[in-house]
Amino acid sequence: MTQARYRDLAEWPLMATALVFLAAYAWQVVARLEGEAAAPFEVVMWATWAVFVADYLINLGLAPDRGRWFIWNLHELLIVALPFFRPLRLLRLVTVLSVLHRSVGDTLRGRVVTYVAGSAALLVLVGSLAVLDVEQHAHDAKILTLGDAAWWAITTITTVGYGDLYPVTPLGRLVAAALMMSGIAVIGVVTASIASWLVQRIELNTEAAVTASEEPVRSELAELLDEVAALRREIAELRGRGGGIVETTGPERG
Amino acid sequence: MTQARYRDLAEWPLMATALVFLAAYAWQVVARLEGEAAAPFEVVMWATWAVFVADYLINLGLAPDRGRWFIWNLHELLIVALPFFRPLRLLRLVTVLSVLHRSVGDTLRGRVVTYVAGSAALLVLVGSLAVLDVEQHAHDAKILTLGDAAWWAITTITTVGYGDLYPVTPLGRLVAAALMMSGIAVIGVVTASIASWLVQRIELNTEAAVTASEEPVRSELAELLDEVAALRREIAELRGRGGGIVETTGPERG
Amino acid sequence: MTQARYRDLAEWPLMATALVFLAAYAWQVVARLEGEAAAPFEVVMWATWAVFVADYLINLGLAPDRGRWFIWNLHELLIVALPFFRPLRLLRLVTVLSVLHRSVGDTLRGRVVTYVAGSAALLVLVGSLAVLDVEQHAHDAKILTLGDAAWWAITTITTVGYGDLYPVTPLGRLVAAALMMSGIAVIGVVTASIASWLVQRIELNTEAAVTASEEPVRSELAELLDEVAALRREIAELRGRGGGIVETTGPERG
Amino acid sequence: MTQARYRDLAEWPLMATALVFLAAYAWQVVARLEGEAAAPFEVVMWATWAVFVADYLINLGLAPDRGRWFIWNLHELLIVALPFFRPLRLLRLVTVLSVLHRSVGDTLRGRVVTYVAGSAALLVLVGSLAVLDVEQHAHDAKILTLGDAAWWAITTITTVGYGDLYPVTPLGRLVAAALMMSGIAVIGVVTASIASWLVQRIELNTEAAVTASEEPVRSELAELLDEVAALRREIAELRGRGGGIVETTGPERG
Repeated sequence: MTQARYRDLAEWPLMATALVFLAAYAWQVVARLEGEAAAPFEVVMWATWAVFVADYLINLGLAPDRGRWFIWNLHELLIVALPFFRPLRLLRLVTVLSVLHRSVGDTLRGRVVTYVAGSAALLVLVGSLAVLDVEQHAHDAKILTLGDAAWWAITTITTVGYGDLYPVTPLGRLVAAALMMSGIAVIGVVTASIASWLVQRIELNTEAAVTASEEPVRSELAELLDEVAALRREIAELRGRGGGIVETTGPERG
Repeated sequence: MTQARYRDLAEWPLMATALVFLAAYAWQVVARLEGEAAAPFEVVMWATWAVFVADYLINLGLAPDRGRWFIWNLHELLIVALPFFRPLRLLRLVTVLSVLHRSVGDTLRGRVVTYVAGSAALLVLVGSLAVLDVEQHAHDAKILTLGDAAWWAITTITTVGYGDLYPVTPLGRLVAAALMMSGIAVIGVVTASIASWLVQRIELNTEAAVTASEEPVRSELAELLDEVAALRREIAELRGRGGGIVETTGPERG
Repeated sequence: MTQARYRDLAEWPLMATALVFLAAYAWQVVARLEGEAAAPFEVVMWATWAVFVADYLINLGLAPDRGRWFIWNLHELLIVALPFFRPLRLLRLVTVLSVLHRSVGDTLRGRVVTYVAGSAALLVLVGSLAVLDVEQHAHDAKILTLGDAAWWAITTITTVGYGDLYPVTPLGRLVAAALMMSGIAVIGVVTASIASWLVQRIELNTEAAVTASEEPVRSELAELLDEVAALRREIAELRGRGGGIVETTGPERG
Repeated sequence: MTQARYRDLAEWPLMATALVFLAAYAWQVVARLEGEAAAPFEVVMWATWAVFVADYLINLGLAPDRGRWFIWNLHELLIVALPFFRPLRLLRLVTVLSVLHRSVGDTLRGRVVTYVAGSAALLVLVGSLAVLDVEQHAHDAKILTLGDAAWWAITTITTVGYGDLYPVTPLGRLVAAALMMSGIAVIGVVTASIASWLVQRIELNTEAAVTASEEPVRSELAELLDEVAALRREIAELRGRGGGIVETTGPERG
C-alpha cells in the first residue's frame, strides 16, 4: 500500500479520533477533573493517543524516503511524543476545512471566508482549551473559565490585546505566543487575498490588452496569406500559357 | 415584478426606515429608557421591524430560485428574526456608501476613502450602540456612556486595544469580536488597495512594454506586404508581355 | 502670477513659518504656560496664524476655479479657522519630506524609508504635542509630560496600545483616533511597498518572457523577408530574359 | 585584498565573536552582575568590542569609496561607538539566517519561514536582553526577569500589547519603540510574501496566456513560409522551361 493511498483511507477515521479527543480533552479541562473522576477521560485520551502514534508509525513505514519524511515531519513527532503539545492534535480537524472547501467551490471569496473563518475558529478553540488547561491551576491566574479563555483567545488572535486577561504561567505564555503568530498569519492571509483579488482584476485587463495588441498582427498576416495565394494562382496561370511554348515539362514537385 | 426592479424601488424607503430605526434605537439606548418611557420607541422599532420583515418576505417571494436565495441569505433571516442581531439592521445604511461612491467618481483613491471611511464610521456607530445596549446594565460594566462606547469601538476596530475599557458580558464580547474581525477586514482593504494601486502602476509599464515589443513585428509585416505587392505587380507585367506570344488564354481563376 | 508659481515661491517661507509655530507651540505646551508668561508665545502664534490665513486667501484668489478649489481644500479652511485643529498646521512640515525625497533618490527602498520614517516621526511629534495640550489640565489625566506623550503616541501609531497611558478627555480621544488611523495608513504603506517590490521583481520576469516569446516570430519574419526578396530577384531575372522575346514593354510601375 | 574578499573571510570569526558577546552580555544582564563579579564579563565584552572596532576600521580602509561607505554605514559607527547601542552588535547573528537560508533552499515558503522566524527570534532575544539591561534597576520597573522580558518582547513585536508589562525608563521605551517598528516590518514582510506568492500564481497564468496568444501567429507564419517556398519552386520550374527559349543563363543567386 502506498502512503498516499493510506492517507486517503485514514483521513476520516483520524478526524473522528480527533473529535473524540476534543470532546474528552474539553470536558476534562472545563470540568477541572482530577484524580478518580478524570480516569475515564484519561483512558479515552490514551486510546486516541495510541491511534495518533499508530498513524505516525504507519506513515513513517510507508514513506518512500523515510529519512526525509522523518526530518520534514519532526513537528508530527513532537505533537505525538510530548504531552505539552497534546492540544495540537486537534489541528487534525483542519481536514474539515478542506472538506468544507470542496463543497463551497472554487471562488476566491468562498475560499478566503472558509479558510480564514475555519482556521481562526479552530485556533481560538485549541488556544482557549490549551491556555485554560495550563493556567487554571496557577494561584494568580486570570483566565479561569472557558468563556474567559475564548474571549482572551479572540483579543489575542486579532492582536487587539486589551490586557484585561493574560496568561501568567510560562506554558500559558507559550500558548499565547503561538496564538499571536497565528493571528499575524491569518491577518496576512486576509490582506494578501484581498490584494491578489484586486491585482487579478488588473491582470485580466493586461491579458485583454495583450490579446488586443496581437489582433492587427494577425489580420495583416491573413492579408499577406491571401496576397501570396493570389500571386501563386497568377504564376500557375502564366505557367499554363508558357506550356504552349515548350512541350517538355519537368517532374511535378509537391 | 422582478426582484431586481423591487430592489431598485425599495432602496430609498428601506434606507429611510433604517434611519428611523437608528434614531429610535440610539435614543432608547443612550437615554437608558425602560418601562413606560420606552413605549413610544418600542412602537417605532416594531414598526421598522415590520418593514424589514415585509422586505425579507417580498424578496423571498420574488426570487427566481427561492431555495437558493434562502440559503445564501440566511444572515438576512437571522438579522430579521433574532432580537440580538437588531443593531445589524443599521447595516442597511451601507447603501449610503454606494450613493456616495457614485458621486465621488471612479478613482481608486476616492473609492478607498469613501468605502473605508464610510464602513469604519458605520461599524463604529453600530458597535458603539450595540455594546452600550448590552453592557450598561451589567453591574461591573466599564462602558457606560455613548462617548465611552465610541472611544472603545475606535480602539477596538484599529486593533490598538488600550484596555482602559472593555466589555464584560458575553453579549458585549460577541459584539467586540465582530468589531475586531471587521477591523482586520478594514485594515486588509486599506493595505490591499494601496498595494494594488502600486501594482497597477507597474502593470501599466508591462502593458507598454508588450505593446512596444509588438512594434518591430508589425513594421516588418508591413514591409513584407509591400514587397509581395511589388512582386505581384512585376508578375502581372511579365504576364502582360507573355500574352504577346500565345493568343489562347486559360479560363480566369478567381 | 499663477497658483503653481506662487506655491513654488511660498514653499520655503511657509515651512519656516511652520517651524517657528512648532517652536512656539511646543514651548507653550511643554512649559504649561498660562496668563502673562504665555503672552509672547501667543503673539508668535497669532503672527504665524496670520501667515497661514494669508496663504489660504492667496491660494483661493489665484486658483483657476475658485469654487472647486474651495471644495477640495475644505480641510485647509478647517485647519486655518478652528483653534482645535491648530496642531495640524505642523503638517506643512511634510514639505521637508519631499525635499529629503529628492536628495535620497528614486529607489523604492529609499522612498519607503524616507516617507514612512518621516511621516511617522512627524505624526508622533504632532500627536504628542496635541494630546499633551488638551490632556494635561484634565484632573484625571495620565499623559502629563512630553516624554509620556511621545511614548503614548508611539504605542498608539504602531497599534500596540499597552494601555499604561491613554487620553481621558473627548479632545484627547479625537487626537488619539486620528493617530490610530494614521498608524493603519502607515502600516498599509509599509506592507504595500514591500508587496509591490516583490511583485515588481515577478513582473520583470513576465516582461522578459513576453519579449522571449516574440523572438521566434521575429526570426521567422526575417527569414520570410529574405525568401520573398530572393523570389523577386529570380522573377526580375526571368523578366530580363523574357524581354528578349517581345520588344514592347509596358510603362514601368514603381 | 578587496573588501568583498575580507568580508568572506571575516564572516565566520565575526559570528563567533557575536556569540561570545551574546553569552557574556546575557549572563551579565540576567545575573545582575555589578562591581567585582562583573569584571571578567566586562573583559570579554571589551575584547569582543575591540574585534568589532577592528572590523569597522578594516572595512573602512578597504572600501573602494571611503566617503560613500562612511555615509552609508553610519549605523555601524553608532553600534560600535555608543555603549547604548551595544545590544545591536548581536544583529551580526543575522548572518546565521543567510546560512540557514542557503541550506533551506530557494522556495518562497522556505525563505519566508526562515527569515521571518529567524529575524523575529533574534529581535525578541536582542530586545529582551536590552530592555532587561536598562529596566531592571529602575525602582518602579515591571520587567524584572528574562522570562518576563521575553514575554513582553513577544507581545510587543506582534503589536498585541496587553499592557501587563511595559518599560518605564526612557531607554527602555526607546528599545520598545525599535521593537514595535521591527514588528510592523516583520508583519509587512509576512503579508507581502503571501500576497506576492498569490500574485505569482496569477502571473504564471498571464505568461501562459501571452504564449498561447502567440501560437496562431506562429502557425500562420509557418504556413506562409511553406506557401512562399512552393511559389519559389514553381518559378524555378517555370524558369527551367523558359531556359528552353534562351540559352544564356545569369549566374545563380542564393
